[in-house]
Amino acid sequence: MSGSTIGKIFQVTTWGESHGKAVGVVIDGCPPRMPLDEDRIQAMLNRRRPGASIASTQRREKDRALICSGVFDGLTTGTPILIMVKNKDAKSSAYEPYADIYRPGHGDYTYESKYGIRDWRGGGRASARETVGRVAAGAVAKALLERFGVSVQAYTIELGGIRAEQRNLEEADQNAFLCPDMKAAEAMESRIADIKKNGDSAGGVVEIVATGVPKGLGDPVFDKLDADLAKALMSIGAVKGVEIGAGFQACRLLGSQNNDAITPQGFASNNAGGILAGISNGEDIIMRVGVKPIPSISIEQQTIDKENRRQTLSVRGRHDIAAIPRINVVCEAMVHIVLADHLLRQQVLNAI
Amino acid sequence: MSGSTIGKIFQVTTWGESHGKAVGVVIDGCPPRMPLDEDRIQAMLNRRRPGASIASTQRREKDRALICSGVFDGLTTGTPILIMVKNKDAKSSAYEPYADIYRPGHGDYTYESKYGIRDWRGGGRASARETVGRVAAGAVAKALLERFGVSVQAYTIELGGIRAEQRNLEEADQNAFLCPDMKAAEAMESRIADIKKNGDSAGGVVEIVATGVPKGLGDPVFDKLDADLAKALMSIGAVKGVEIGAGFQACRLLGSQNNDAITPQGFASNNAGGILAGISNGEDIIMRVGVKPIPSISIEQQTIDKENRRQTLSVRGRHDIAAIPRINVVCEAMVHIVLADHLLRQQVLNAI
Amino acid sequence: MSGSTIGKIFQVTTWGESHGKAVGVVIDGCPPRMPLDEDRIQAMLNRRRPGASIASTQRREKDRALICSGVFDGLTTGTPILIMVKNKDAKSSAYEPYADIYRPGHGDYTYESKYGIRDWRGGGRASARETVGRVAAGAVAKALLERFGVSVQAYTIELGGIRAEQRNLEEADQNAFLCPDMKAAEAMESRIADIKKNGDSAGGVVEIVATGVPKGLGDPVFDKLDADLAKALMSIGAVKGVEIGAGFQACRLLGSQNNDAITPQGFASNNAGGILAGISNGEDIIMRVGVKPIPSISIEQQTIDKENRRQTLSVRGRHDIAAIPRINVVCEAMVHIVLADHLLRQQVLNAI
Amino acid sequence: MSGSTIGKIFQVTTWGESHGKAVGVVIDGCPPRMPLDEDRIQAMLNRRRPGASIASTQRREKDRALICSGVFDGLTTGTPILIMVKNKDAKSSAYEPYADIYRPGHGDYTYESKYGIRDWRGGGRASARETVGRVAAGAVAKALLERFGVSVQAYTIELGGIRAEQRNLEEADQNAFLCPDMKAAEAMESRIADIKKNGDSAGGVVEIVATGVPKGLGDPVFDKLDADLAKALMSIGAVKGVEIGAGFQACRLLGSQNNDAITPQGFASNNAGGILAGISNGEDIIMRVGVKPIPSISIEQQTIDKENRRQTLSVRGRHDIAAIPRINVVCEAMVHIVLADHLLRQQVLNAI
Repeated sequence: MSGSTIGKIFQVTTWGESHGKAVGVVIDGCPPRMPLDEDRIQAMLNRRRPGASIASTQRREKDRALICSGVFDGLTTGTPILIMVKNKDAKSSAYEPYADIYRPGHGDYTYESKYGIRDWRGGGRASARETVGRVAAGAVAKALLERFGVSVQAYTIELGGIRAEQRNLEEADQNAFLCPDMKAAEAMESRIADIKKNGDSAGGVVEIVATGVPKGLGDPVFDKLDADLAKALMSIGAVKGVEIGAGFQACRLLGSQNNDAITPQGFASNNAGGILAGISNGEDIIMRVGVKPIPSISIEQQTIDKENRRQTLSVRGRHDIAAIPRINVVCEAMVHIVLADHLLRQQVLNAI
Repeated sequence: MSGSTIGKIFQVTTWGESHGKAVGVVIDGCPPRMPLDEDRIQAMLNRRRPGASIASTQRREKDRALICSGVFDGLTTGTPILIMVKNKDAKSSAYEPYADIYRPGHGDYTYESKYGIRDWRGGGRASARETVGRVAAGAVAKALLERFGVSVQAYTIELGGIRAEQRNLEEADQNAFLCPDMKAAEAMESRIADIKKNGDSAGGVVEIVATGVPKGLGDPVFDKLDADLAKALMSIGAVKGVEIGAGFQACRLLGSQNNDAITPQGFASNNAGGILAGISNGEDIIMRVGVKPIPSISIEQQTIDKENRRQTLSVRGRHDIAAIPRINVVCEAMVHIVLADHLLRQQVLNAI
Repeated sequence: MSGSTIGKIFQVTTWGESHGKAVGVVIDGCPPRMPLDEDRIQAMLNRRRPGASIASTQRREKDRALICSGVFDGLTTGTPILIMVKNKDAKSSAYEPYADIYRPGHGDYTYESKYGIRDWRGGGRASARETVGRVAAGAVAKALLERFGVSVQAYTIELGGIRAEQRNLEEADQNAFLCPDMKAAEAMESRIADIKKNGDSAGGVVEIVATGVPKGLGDPVFDKLDADLAKALMSIGAVKGVEIGAGFQACRLLGSQNNDAITPQGFASNNAGGILAGISNGEDIIMRVGVKPIPSISIEQQTIDKENRRQTLSVRGRHDIAAIPRINVVCEAMVHIVLADHLLRQQVLNAI
Repeated sequence: MSGSTIGKIFQVTTWGESHGKAVGVVIDGCPPRMPLDEDRIQAMLNRRRPGASIASTQRREKDRALICSGVFDGLTTGTPILIMVKNKDAKSSAYEPYADIYRPGHGDYTYESKYGIRDWRGGGRASARETVGRVAAGAVAKALLERFGVSVQAYTIELGGIRAEQRNLEEADQNAFLCPDMKAAEAMESRIADIKKNGDSAGGVVEIVATGVPKGLGDPVFDKLDADLAKALMSIGAVKGVEIGAGFQACRLLGSQNNDAITPQGFASNNAGGILAGISNGEDIIMRVGVKPIPSISIEQQTIDKENRRQTLSVRGRHDIAAIPRINVVCEAMVHIVLADHLLRQQVLNAI
């Protein structure tokens, strides 16, 4: 079935496996006459590149974004934009031991169950490498959103059990973990180093804020803005939970505490996280995602092979210790994509 | 824009406003030759009816489900199934005070921002009355899923700050709060009575479990089963957070703790909540949603009117104190709808 | 499968069988704040009503359009518009002989093959009665298009072998066959009377012209305006061919004859029928559909029953002799629907 | 807007401009475990290559199909299949004269009207080069259909006014015009030579037959099989008319002549062209498309430039004289794509 497309107007279709010839994306529905070049895409791809923090793999991906269609003389033409990145540094042989063994916590078992076949090289389609296409599309969406004054930032508020106590967003770009609390960032570094030494892995929480979002985005009753954001974020590999505004904490408040009073100057608080009844209300949109620990660990685990025989497994090779902070840019990309789609959808309402 | 449809094959489109002539749903894509009658739909609608718990409004909705198309001689025909429920007990006049005032926490402000018009009677399209269509469609999906041995149950694990300490699912149907812990249910009753006395409202957490789901459902990379479930659940009015399996708690575990070991007899644990890489793995699918407190409270609140003037507001009339437990059957309905859609989608893979 | 919806933004979903409780339509995606009332819908439904010409059945359908949702205070609200018409004059017993026999030229055989069940009463879902929903949706689309100065007219240019020699469009409303050539209309009347006497039926050609269509509608490469019009028109029961502009005649011309020269004042001719490369060019959009003869005839025919046994069949009862002229308003409706959808889609391009 | 995708389950998205880096297609929804390799795609691309007949341009496209994703060990994996062909032989400079002048009969004027920008090199997105992606996707669809015994053949029944008097389908592959009447093919050759000498161009009619199509394909009421075929065929650049079975001729027949009698052995005739009420009936599906003459001619034409000034234009360079016979393989591809999509959709009905 065809589940590789997201968006109704700004339609994003990713394609590609970890160790195939290339990975990439087709974006159909981007408005014409918007400046776009490969450097813009590349800048975003660089941000998802491994190596910046000790949580990330040392695999060197010299990802070069190629725009193959949809752009002419530096402007979008309104036709499909194909962006591809060739796969270069792919050591398939390192994955051969896993051709017949299902790695716990990975999609090996379920892909095999569903399709009866799977490209086991590097995780195939289930690899985080697929997010190259998402990030490239996110870069295009970001270019569109900037024209409307919308910006999106994802930052780490928890990692390996260490929580950020502050939200100094400008600090988030000053440490490898994208944490808005330098002190917490230092504790994270030390915590991750310990976990790495033990051959284990860690999870955490990423918060994403979108500012400048105009009122009125979101299409009830099913394509509500929060519903589409939840889907987009939950579609990211390691994400196991999504919340908006006060989120799960809201359920412990009374109505009188949780309701955001409205004043002539705007909302007095933002427990709603910028979305009421599925429609943006002009306040910052605030989201949080729970990110599970990376399933590939060198600690020995129990599993089975294709013949349903017991096996033990210790995953060697270059792997991230945590999906954070590389997942942050993917979260930003997904939010960019959803907002761009809804911003374009909203144009239709101005028809008459 | 057209956001009232969910599902790709089992397509559900709800329509109707709280105080219009009727509310209902069209289901297109239900397989033919499946037994279906109005009693089946009615049984589910009765479950969402108010009055069972003190948390719910006393509004008497004599909802009678009418199947207007798509069923012949007691069997589905494969053509669109239109189910409608006439609106009867609608006191629009009670809402007149809110025609020009935006109730905090409600969609009044955002609907007006988006559409430039809103049916203010009873909340219009943003009313929980819209869920009549969802529950009716859920009943059809449930009928389909039963043939495959799939069942879904939603129960209350937290309400007004009171948490269930046990998961005796058979107890969940024995108290008005659908709580799988009778002792907690009693505490909830007393807590809700207090909150009601104060003119305030409460939120909580609903857990939903789907059992018997076959392996292989879900269409990566965007229509993953968890992504579609997250969207469906987040599209319910009061829901502010969704998590799968260990959810946000998973992010505090190490990889060695969170990974579910695989044995020849199945998974040794279920932190994944039955979904790996967006595809069902044969284990129970476990979801939790955070439900915010009902925004309509009689405690006075600050707000504005259409002319952007300060107003104070105290919402009188018949309102639920908590969306729980009435929201539980809506959660079940949405999960039924998503699973039915993916179960049908999966048939395509067996083509060759 | 779910094939009852057309349109991407202005989404139209018809539902209902000939002899069920009701037939109707849900329209999702109609912009808000547009005046709409039941009289407007009714006026269009009255035009598809039988009885105006001798080609049509004498069945009296007192179709009363009910708007059940999506309209408040006489204005659309941007939410789904449900329009229904109750089925009243339904003599199911007249169809009992055909419960087990497949009428040649009808969908009986194929519906049974596809679904393994069919509502044989009055043709069920395959009945022309389904077009009530199309015409109601067309009336809404027409209301939208009028605001942009777009109008659509369908008229008969051939019936029972008699061709209109003129295109006096104002004459088309002055005869029962909607023929823009009064003389031809008289010949048609006499021809149809003969055919009726023989218990046979006739086909013809309907031409549809849309004027005032702005330049730029249509979304290559698959949702071209002519492609979407072709689909919409071919989806009408009796239509077996669709052509645009010079159509099949264009293939007999040389390039130098067929190309429409462009001048500072516009196109010098309109062989293209108002569409170039799938996009409207500002000229009139001209379409023609070939309409097959009504398959229900009283002349005896060879067929089989459900047990694959030979049967002879002579269809009695009230039937049209020709789908023309009742099909004309359905053609208009489909063109209205497609143009409204593309007009709204085009708004997106003005985003930046 | 996003109009570059066709199909609901077997989803085909073409991308690329004539003189961009590459053209290609993403196919999402192809079932897993189906043998597929580049040779299979290449074989079909070779058939659309120019040069086989004197009607075609001498431009040498060394189209090499590259499968970049979705295939592993020679089998499809159920993930998106990206097929690309690099653009090599692109002389953009030859098109510079047309950067500011609208060629009559081409999309230059309408693309500019719609998007406010166009890639004028080689016709950009409106170039027939876009059909590379269609043909590649058609090859995949064909591989799928072969497993079900379905085959599709397109052949020329009229060109430049010369009609085939016979349907010897085996002869169709024995002449450059794919005409099932060798004598007519000879006359076509001489006729085309004359037209070429005059700097003019020609149109014609292509007939397409699909055999072995199982009963039951097609999803009323809008996604009828004939409706989807009409859309797919009309979406091909030069097509101005589509008919099914007896088509426009059916409208001149009486019901008693047009109805296909049903016998225990099948249908006694096939005026319906294999489709009744939008659903395949097990007979051959017969379609015809009217193909307009190629608009690029060296005869001088009147047109305007971007400043709305009169211009005369004589299109030099390498151009086909007729879209036939190169369009035939594109027609086959589109029919393959639609049938594959509907064949997969039909699987859903077997769910229960």
